[in-house]
Amino acid sequence: MSVFEMTFQDTNCSARRARLKTASGVIQTPVFMPVGTRGSVKGLTPRQLKDTGSEVVLANTYHMMLRPGVEAVQALGGLHNLMSWDGPILTDSGGYQVFSLSTLNRIGDEGVEFASHIDGKKIYIDAKIATDVQNRLGADIIMCFDECAPFPCEKKDLEKAVARTIKWAKQCKDAHRNDRQLLFGIVQGGIDLQLRSYCAEELVKLDFDGFAIGGLSVGEGHDNMIKTVEHTSRLLPEDKPRYLMGVGMPADIIAAVRAGVDMFDCVLPTRNGRNAFAFTNEGPVRLRNNTHVEDTAPIEEDCGCYCCKNFSRGTLRHFFNVGEMLGPILVSIHNLTFYQNLMDLIGERIEDNTFDEWAAERIENDKFMTVN
Amino acid sequence: MSVFEMTFQDTNCSARRARLKTASGVIQTPVFMPVGTRGSVKGLTPRQLKDTGSEVVLANTYHMMLRPGVEAVQALGGLHNLMSWDGPILTDSGGYQVFSLSTLNRIGDEGVEFASHIDGKKIYIDAKIATDVQNRLGADIIMCFDECAPFPCEKKDLEKAVARTIKWAKQCKDAHRNDRQLLFGIVQGGIDLQLRSYCAEELVKLDFDGFAIGGLSVGEGHDNMIKTVEHTSRLLPEDKPRYLMGVGMPADIIAAVRAGVDMFDCVLPTRNGRNAFAFTNEGPVRLRNNTHVEDTAPIEEDCGCYCCKNFSRGTLRHFFNVGEMLGPILVSIHNLTFYQNLMDLIGERIEDNTFDEWAAERIENDKFMTVN
Repeated sequence: MSVFEMTFQDTNCSARRARLKTASGVIQTPVFMPVGTRGSVKGLTPRQLKDTGSEVVLANTYHMMLRPGVEAVQALGGLHNLMSWDGPILTDSGGYQVFSLSTLNRIGDEGVEFASHIDGKKIYIDAKIATDVQNRLGADIIMCFDECAPFPCEKKDLEKAVARTIKWAKQCKDAHRNDRQLLFGIVQGGIDLQLRSYCAEELVKLDFDGFAIGGLSVGEGHDNMIKTVEHTSRLLPEDKPRYLMGVGMPADIIAAVRAGVDMFDCVLPTRNGRNAFAFTNEGPVRLRNNTHVEDTAPIEEDCGCYCCKNFSRGTLRHFFNVGEMLGPILVSIHNLTFYQNLMDLIGERIEDNTFDEWAAERIENDKFMTVN
Repeated sequence: MSVFEMTFQDTNCSARRARLKTASGVIQTPVFMPVGTRGSVKGLTPRQLKDTGSEVVLANTYHMMLRPGVEAVQALGGLHNLMSWDGPILTDSGGYQVFSLSTLNRIGDEGVEFASHIDGKKIYIDAKIATDVQNRLGADIIMCFDECAPFPCEKKDLEKAVARTIKWAKQCKDAHRNDRQLLFGIVQGGIDLQLRSYCAEELVKLDFDGFAIGGLSVGEGHDNMIKTVEHTSRLLPEDKPRYLMGVGMPADIIAAVRAGVDMFDCVLPTRNGRNAFAFTNEGPVRLRNNTHVEDTAPIEEDCGCYCCKNFSRGTLRHFFNVGEMLGPILVSIHNLTFYQNLMDLIGERIEDNTFDEWAAERIENDKFMTVN
């Protein structure tokens, strides 16, 4: 098989189901990737993570680079060994965190000097270094170094970010030295559709293994995001995977799948889980709420996750109330299971060719859009 | 079978192996019970806890009484349901925490008024209430309300504590209203052997289902502790279980088993685990240490626990260094497995009738005695 093989294509929209071949196994898309920022999806062992139905994990290059450092990761046998995860792993390029977390000292067309958010240490990163670091971390899918502009952003700054992103993408492609890894390009351009077109066209010429849509979910709102995704997705090759970075809420994901996106990552299921916010088909359940003190129901009646099979809302509320670690752990397990069940359902709907209609209704009646 | 049935008796010392029948299953002794203070062994799901070889869990009446409160526990189906633990559970009486954690407002021969350490709320507790609360929490083994004197302690205060403990034990026995639960008496008396004798004799007359030795591991040191345990254990009936509360380090446990003790509970494996301190047969491993940055070895080479099978010391050090929850979780899993393996070994040695010699050598060469 080729690296990316489409298995179903919805006839009413751009939604599709495909198989993406990586060195650590085949990924069935549409896929949701939990975020293991520093080598761990917070609070979950790899075994618990697998039990949620998760098959791919994202780790952050920026964080792993700072601590424990790329030499330590290599000494420990690479990311898969460190994380004890034998399935596919994707690393981002570090770009997003360099621009959002650290204090920037100097940003130029060649690269960025920044101060570590941990200890203020000055670090220089550019396309070559970001690629080399990812080559050494050893994930199955790696990303080009890009500049993610904030929202809102002056046109001239957005143009500059796009120009750099394209320039750096070429450098990443040249620097890439690990045949086991797929390299994805990242389309930037904010919500400026013209810039998105330009960036997409330039990146497509470079012929990456896959294409990401970056720079969204930074405050532009669902409608702007989806308009941009629909526009950009159309410009990307049919026979390559499309990855919408850092997205999102259930309705965002469904709308993006409809636009032809295959891959997603987001911290929402785990971050919200740690904050006692549970996703259910009936809408959010806030487990710190006093109404749950004597509530013997699970978070969701027909959910098969370990949390719902074993713990009541009353117990979970108690755990959050007294600060027991099991609260965040169990609700993260539930939320990830909820997301993976959603992805399964999306896949089934595509196979049935009933996705388009279902998606419209699901987005129309969405219970999460305005939350968080 | 009767409630307590001895299966092996070491011919060279008082160590023994027995089966203790409870409403939620048979406990094989000597047994180590992890502490689930507020209804959860910190960071571990019941499934992970079972995987460490743990069969009995302790929960703290004081903590469950304050939050979520006994009515909420009952509404949630009792402690077993709340904790999702279908094996045996033991609750302490709350006495220890009332005297150690709370601000005491008024202590009398009838009972104690204290201020909750959470919100300062005034709460009255006495033998009848402590028993009623435990009857309602629904553990398999419950404890008499006792006064645990501090160390060191004036003789007259120690005498007063012993007198109250005996008086309250009678009241607990009379108040006990749940046939599914075994009720244990608690011998107090500090390291005063005469007071221990008096207390033990009075409690034995009351014919409890089992007897605990309380008021130790409060700063008296290993030698004082073991001298007191040896003295007290001899005074307790052969055909009833003996439980040394809040103990302890491996050498403490081994020495107490040699003196005829059957049951133990202690927070050390989990508390130390959360602090990056791992127990191994070669002595402590401190996982925050920089020497582990590139260490690919597991905590312990021949350990079969989930942590050792999947994670290197280098990864664990990284998790502690960056504050990932998995560090505390994984080392707690290892430490509990270490303790349960120790208990298994103790049991095997008793069955082989080689315990006494092994214990002497193990205590002589102990690598943990002076730690923490």
